Amino acid sequence: MPVRGYTWGRTGEATHPDSMRAAFSEFISTLIFVFAGEGSVLALDKIGQDTTSASGLVAVAMAHAFALFVAVALAANISGGHVNPAVTFGALLGGRISLLRSMYYWVAQLLGAVVASILLRLTTAGMRPLGFTVAHGVGVWNALIFEIVMTFGLVYVVYATAIDPKRGSLGTIAPLAIGFIVGANILAGGPFDGASMNPARAFGPALLGWRWRDHWIYWVGPLIGGGLAGLIYEYMVIPQEPPTAHQPLAPEDY
Amino acid sequence: MPVRGYTWGRTGEATHPDSMRAAFSEFISTLIFVFAGEGSVLALDKIGQDTTSASGLVAVAMAHAFALFVAVALAANISGGHVNPAVTFGALLGGRISLLRSMYYWVAQLLGAVVASILLRLTTAGMRPLGFTVAHGVGVWNALIFEIVMTFGLVYVVYATAIDPKRGSLGTIAPLAIGFIVGANILAGGPFDGASMNPARAFGPALLGWRWRDHWIYWVGPLIGGGLAGLIYEYMVIPQEPPTAHQPLAPEDY
Amino acid sequence: MPVRGYTWGRTGEATHPDSMRAAFSEFISTLIFVFAGEGSVLALDKIGQDTTSASGLVAVAMAHAFALFVAVALAANISGGHVNPAVTFGALLGGRISLLRSMYYWVAQLLGAVVASILLRLTTAGMRPLGFTVAHGVGVWNALIFEIVMTFGLVYVVYATAIDPKRGSLGTIAPLAIGFIVGANILAGGPFDGASMNPARAFGPALLGWRWRDHWIYWVGPLIGGGLAGLIYEYMVIPQEPPTAHQPLAPEDY
Amino acid sequence: MPVRGYTWGRTGEATHPDSMRAAFSEFISTLIFVFAGEGSVLALDKIGQDTTSASGLVAVAMAHAFALFVAVALAANISGGHVNPAVTFGALLGGRISLLRSMYYWVAQLLGAVVASILLRLTTAGMRPLGFTVAHGVGVWNALIFEIVMTFGLVYVVYATAIDPKRGSLGTIAPLAIGFIVGANILAGGPFDGASMNPARAFGPALLGWRWRDHWIYWVGPLIGGGLAGLIYEYMVIPQEPPTAHQPLAPEDY
Repeated sequence: MPVRGYTWGRTGEATHPDSMRAAFSEFISTLIFVFAGEGSVLALDKIGQDTTSASGLVAVAMAHAFALFVAVALAANISGGHVNPAVTFGALLGGRISLLRSMYYWVAQLLGAVVASILLRLTTAGMRPLGFTVAHGVGVWNALIFEIVMTFGLVYVVYATAIDPKRGSLGTIAPLAIGFIVGANILAGGPFDGASMNPARAFGPALLGWRWRDHWIYWVGPLIGGGLAGLIYEYMVIPQEPPTAHQPLAPEDY
Repeated sequence: MPVRGYTWGRTGEATHPDSMRAAFSEFISTLIFVFAGEGSVLALDKIGQDTTSASGLVAVAMAHAFALFVAVALAANISGGHVNPAVTFGALLGGRISLLRSMYYWVAQLLGAVVASILLRLTTAGMRPLGFTVAHGVGVWNALIFEIVMTFGLVYVVYATAIDPKRGSLGTIAPLAIGFIVGANILAGGPFDGASMNPARAFGPALLGWRWRDHWIYWVGPLIGGGLAGLIYEYMVIPQEPPTAHQPLAPEDY
Repeated sequence: MPVRGYTWGRTGEATHPDSMRAAFSEFISTLIFVFAGEGSVLALDKIGQDTTSASGLVAVAMAHAFALFVAVALAANISGGHVNPAVTFGALLGGRISLLRSMYYWVAQLLGAVVASILLRLTTAGMRPLGFTVAHGVGVWNALIFEIVMTFGLVYVVYATAIDPKRGSLGTIAPLAIGFIVGANILAGGPFDGASMNPARAFGPALLGWRWRDHWIYWVGPLIGGGLAGLIYEYMVIPQEPPTAHQPLAPEDY
Repeated sequence: MPVRGYTWGRTGEATHPDSMRAAFSEFISTLIFVFAGEGSVLALDKIGQDTTSASGLVAVAMAHAFALFVAVALAANISGGHVNPAVTFGALLGGRISLLRSMYYWVAQLLGAVVASILLRLTTAGMRPLGFTVAHGVGVWNALIFEIVMTFGLVYVVYATAIDPKRGSLGTIAPLAIGFIVGANILAGGPFDGASMNPARAFGPALLGWRWRDHWIYWVGPLIGGGLAGLIYEYMVIPQEPPTAHQPLAPEDY
C-alpha cells in the first residue's frame, strides 16, 4: 500500500518519539471526547430523561459537537486529530497513514474511550454507560446504512478539511467542521440508532456497561463509510485537481 | 450577460474538469446538508415531536446551521459553496457565474437533495420525508414574502462574505456566517412556513415524500429573494466601493 | 471632542460615498438582526410559547447570537459593524467616530429595525411585535441596572475586539465574540427584562407593536452602559498599553 | 521554581503597569463570565426551572460556553486569558507564571466573581445566587473526581491551545476551544455536581448566596485537576517535542 504525503511510514516508526506523541495525543483527545459525549447521555439519564425528547437530543448533539471540536483541535498538529478509528481507517485506505501507525492510533483511541468510560463510572457513582442501540422500529440494516452514510459524510469532511494537501485555508476551520458535522448528524440519526459514527465512541461505553446488542453495527457501519470516503476522496477527488490552481500549504495551516 | 470576476464563463467550460469537480462538490455538499437537515425533521417525527415546540425548533435550526456551515466549507474552494439554487441564481443575475455553469450547479444541487432523501427513506425504515408546508393561519402571500426576505438576507450574506472580490478576511468566516444566518432565520420563520430559503432543500423531500402542496412558494420565494440580493449587491453595493480602500485578496482567503 | 484613529471625521463627510455606504451597511445589518431576533420571539408566540421556558430562552438566545454574528461580520469592514446605537454612542464618547457620522448610523440602525418590524408584520400575517418588557417581580431600577451592566459588557467586547487599534488578531473573532456575548447575556437577563442591550432592537418592535411601557429603560440603560464602556476603555485601558509590546495591525485584521 | 517562557517573573513586577493591566483584564473577564454564567442559573430559577431538565441544562451550558469564549478572547492578548484560578495554578506549577503574578490573578479573578454576584443581586431584585451543590445520590468523592477530571481536560486544552509555545495556529481558536470544552463538560457533569471547574465561578455566588455546603470540592477538585494538567503537559508533553518539527510562532498567533 503506498504511503503518500506523510513521512511517518518509515523504518523505526514504532519507537519514534513522534509516533508515541501522536498516539498519546489520540488517547487524550478520545478520552476527553468520550467523557463529555457519553457523559451527556448519562447526565440525561440522571435527570430522568433521554434522547427521545427534542431538548435531550439537542443536549447530546451539542456535547458531542463541542467536545469533538476541542478533541480534534488538540490533536490536529500532533496526530492529525483523528479521534476515531473510522477516520484512521479511511486515511489508511487512502494511503495517508501506514498500517503500523494506524494500529497505534486504534489502540490509543480504544484505550482513551475505555478510560473515559471507567472515569464516568467513578464520577457518576457507578452508573452503567448506555452506549448505542438501534431504536424500536428501525431495522438492523437501516441502522447499518445510517452509520455508513453518516460516517461517509464525517470522513469526507475530515479528508477535505484536514488531510487533503490542497485544503489550504480550510485547515483553520477543520476542527469546527468535524465537530459540527457530528453534531448535525446526531440531530438527524440520534433517535434512530444513536448516531455513533465512531467505533471507539461505541466500544468504551459498551465494554464498561457490558451492552453488546447490535454492537457490530457500530464497527461495520463506520468502517465501511469511512473507508469509502477515504477511497473516493483519494482516488476520485484529489487526482481531478489541476496541479497549479491552489496555493501551497501556508504556515498557518494545520 | 456579462461574466465578471470568474474565468469559467468560457468556451469548453461544459467538459472542463474544473466544471465537473465543481458540480460534484455541489452534489456532495447538498447531499450532506439535506441529509442532516431533513433528517433532523424526521428525527423529531420519530420521537413524536415536531417544530411546534421550542426545543424542536432549536434542534432543527441547529442541525441546519451546523450542516450548512460544513457543506459550504467543503465546497468553498472548489465551487464557491453555493449548495442552494437560489444562491446560484443570485450569482447568475450578478454576472458571477455563466448560465451553463449555473445549470450544472442546479442539476447537481437537486440531485444531491434527491439522493439525500432516498438515503433518508432507506435509513429511517421508510419514513416519508416531510419537507415544507405553510402553517395554519399563515397566508400563501405571507409565506412567499417570508421566503423572499429570508433568502434575500442569506444571499446578501453569501455575496458579502464569499463572492465580493473585496471581501478580504471575511472569506474565512463565510461558511460560518452562511450556516448561522440560516439557523437564525429558521428560529424566526420555522413555525410560519418552515424557513426553507433553498429550492433544492425543499424539492428532494417533496419528491420522495410526494408532497407538493404550496411547493411553488419554496421555488418562487427563494429565487426572487436571491435574485434581488444578487442584483442589489452587484449593481448597488460593489460599484460604490472606492477602488483603493481595501487590501487585496490575501492568499488565505477563500 | 477629539476624533482619533478614524479618518472620517472630516469636512465633506456627510456626502462622502463612504459615509453613505457605511450607513447603508448599518441599515442592512440591523434589518437582518432585528428580523431574526424579534422574529424568533414571534415564532415562539406562534407556537404558543415564550421565553418563560428554558427551551424558548435557548431559541431566542441562539437566534440573536447567530444573527448578530452575521450582522456584525457583514458590516465589519464597511461601517465597523455597530448594528446598535449604544455601540455607536460608546464609540462617539471615546472619540472614535464623529457626531455627524454617529447620527447617520443611528438613523440607519433605527430605520433598519423599523423596516424589519414592518416586514415581520407582513410575513407573520399581522402579528403585533412583542419587543421588551420588565418581568413581574423585577423593579424598573433592577431592569435599568441589568441593561447597563449587560450593555457595558457588550460594548467593552466591541471595543476590545473591533475598535482597539491594538486588537491585533482578535479582530478575526470580533463578530463571533459580539454575537456570543449577546447570546450569553440573553440567557441570563432574558427572564428578567428581555435583555435588549440595543435601543434599535427595542425601538422597531415597540413602534410597530405600539408598546411603550418601560420603553425608556431600553434607551437609557444601553446608552449609559455603552457610554461607560467607551469612556473606560478609551481613557483607562488603551493609555496603559506599552507602546511597543504588540504587533502592528496585520492585513488580515478587520 | 523556574519561570520559563514569560518575562514577567522579574523584580519590580508587582508595580509594573503590565501586571496591573493583566490583573484588570482578568477582573473584567471573570466578571463578564460569572455574570452570564450564574445569571443563566438564576434566569432558570426565575422561570421556575433548573438544570434538571435537558433544556435547562442546554441553556446553562450555552451561557457558559459563549461567555467563557468571550471572556478568554478579551483577556487573551493581555493576561493570557485564564479567567480561572485553576488555570493560573496549572500555569504556576508548569512554571509559566510567577507566584507573585499568580496571586494578582487570583485576587482579580475572585474579585471579578464577587462583583458579578453583587451585580446579580442588584439586577435580579435580590435573588440569592445558587452556586454549586452535589446532586442527590452523588457522593462527595464522586463529585471531587468529577471536578478533577473535567478541570484536567479544561486546563489541558488551555495549555495546548494558549500556553504551549509551539501551539502555532491553534492560538486562533484557543478561546473557542476553552469555551466549548466547558460547555461540553457542563452537559456531562451538570446534573451530578454542577460542573464548576473554576473556584472563582463557585466562590462569588457562594459568598453572596452564603451557601458553603460542599464548597471545598469546588476548590480542591479544580486545583488538583488543573495542577495535574499543568505538570503533565509541561514535563511530559512539551519535552517530547522535536525541536525543529514545528513552525515558529506566527505574528497572528496569540
